[in-house]
Amino acid sequence: MSYRYEIRLAGSGGQGLILAGIILAEAAGIYEGKFVCQTQSYGPAARGGASKAEVVISDAEIDYPKAIRPDVLLAMNQKSLDLYLPDLKPDGLLVVDATLAPEVPRERHVAIPFTKLARDLGKEMAANIVALGALAALTRAVTPESLEKAVLARVPKGTEELNKKALAAGMDAAGRLQGKLQEESAPGE
Amino acid sequence: MSYRYEIRLAGSGGQGLILAGIILAEAAGIYEGKFVCQTQSYGPAARGGASKAEVVISDAEIDYPKAIRPDVLLAMNQKSLDLYLPDLKPDGLLVVDATLAPEVPRERHVAIPFTKLARDLGKEMAANIVALGALAALTRAVTPESLEKAVLARVPKGTEELNKKALAAGMDAAGRLQGKLQEESAPGE
Repeated sequence: MSYRYEIRLAGSGGQGLILAGIILAEAAGIYEGKFVCQTQSYGPAARGGASKAEVVISDAEIDYPKAIRPDVLLAMNQKSLDLYLPDLKPDGLLVVDATLAPEVPRERHVAIPFTKLARDLGKEMAANIVALGALAALTRAVTPESLEKAVLARVPKGTEELNKKALAAGMDAAGRLQGKLQEESAPGE
Repeated sequence: MSYRYEIRLAGSGGQGLILAGIILAEAAGIYEGKFVCQTQSYGPAARGGASKAEVVISDAEIDYPKAIRPDVLLAMNQKSLDLYLPDLKPDGLLVVDATLAPEVPRERHVAIPFTKLARDLGKEMAANIVALGALAALTRAVTPESLEKAVLARVPKGTEELNKKALAAGMDAAGRLQGKLQEESAPGE
């Protein structure tokens, strides 16, 4: 039985989520040899500034390339969280930017201040790459190595070091969270 | 009855066809209020360097986001021309980069030396934008104004003038071709 894993990245236009989608797709498709479809859709309301990119990863050819019932939702602002949360699988992973999406209407979620972490690195625009690092650590949809290769192939020349730091910051934030979650869930071990 | 218009952009990785697909999609979706889906797909062979982006434009919601039977194929090198020509609609528009896809196995086509035109502007990498200018002039899928807005919103800061010239070079090359075609087809008017 083949698997199908759907990731939706959403936020405002200008947060670089289409680039993030392409990087994630290339990490899985080019560097890991998976079948991947990466999609953006626009409707007449697209000028409003909401932006959404989708990545579907499979070990077999993909029949329908859009996310039907996402396994993962990354919501980089409040509007996109409110808009897309209803589509997420009931047991799906919700990851929100704690800086820009503070009101999370679901108990089970991961909140990381991606925008603040990027700002601390001196470049708020790199919040998308911080988020990719966290997604890789949380989902294992792609390996850190593939993701770093895909990031470095796509970001502007001269920003490689910054983007490596952004990836590491995201992985680190997710990793510390997981450590904490494991401690909490297994206090007696 | 709604329309559905499918454009496939193909060439080697590094020719910027995914960016071209995003720009074309944003021109139609954000600046003209059409329904648009833009897709990249990768399979296990993706490392080979062939790159393909698809844009589906409609005046109604799009059910299936990938190109099924493209109305337009832009082939930026010989390999992608040979690979994707069989999928093109029999009466579809074939546009090839005459610099890198010299052997065209179909009589009816448009050949423009996109890469040479971009090189003449001092930046071979801008061949994708030259090609977008030509596609807009040939298909009228998007207006020149929308396309220029979409280009300027996506290209790196400091390259705006170069990219405007690249667009103009593509539109101009296509326009002169159309003038020639009209003269040929209507000599007695």
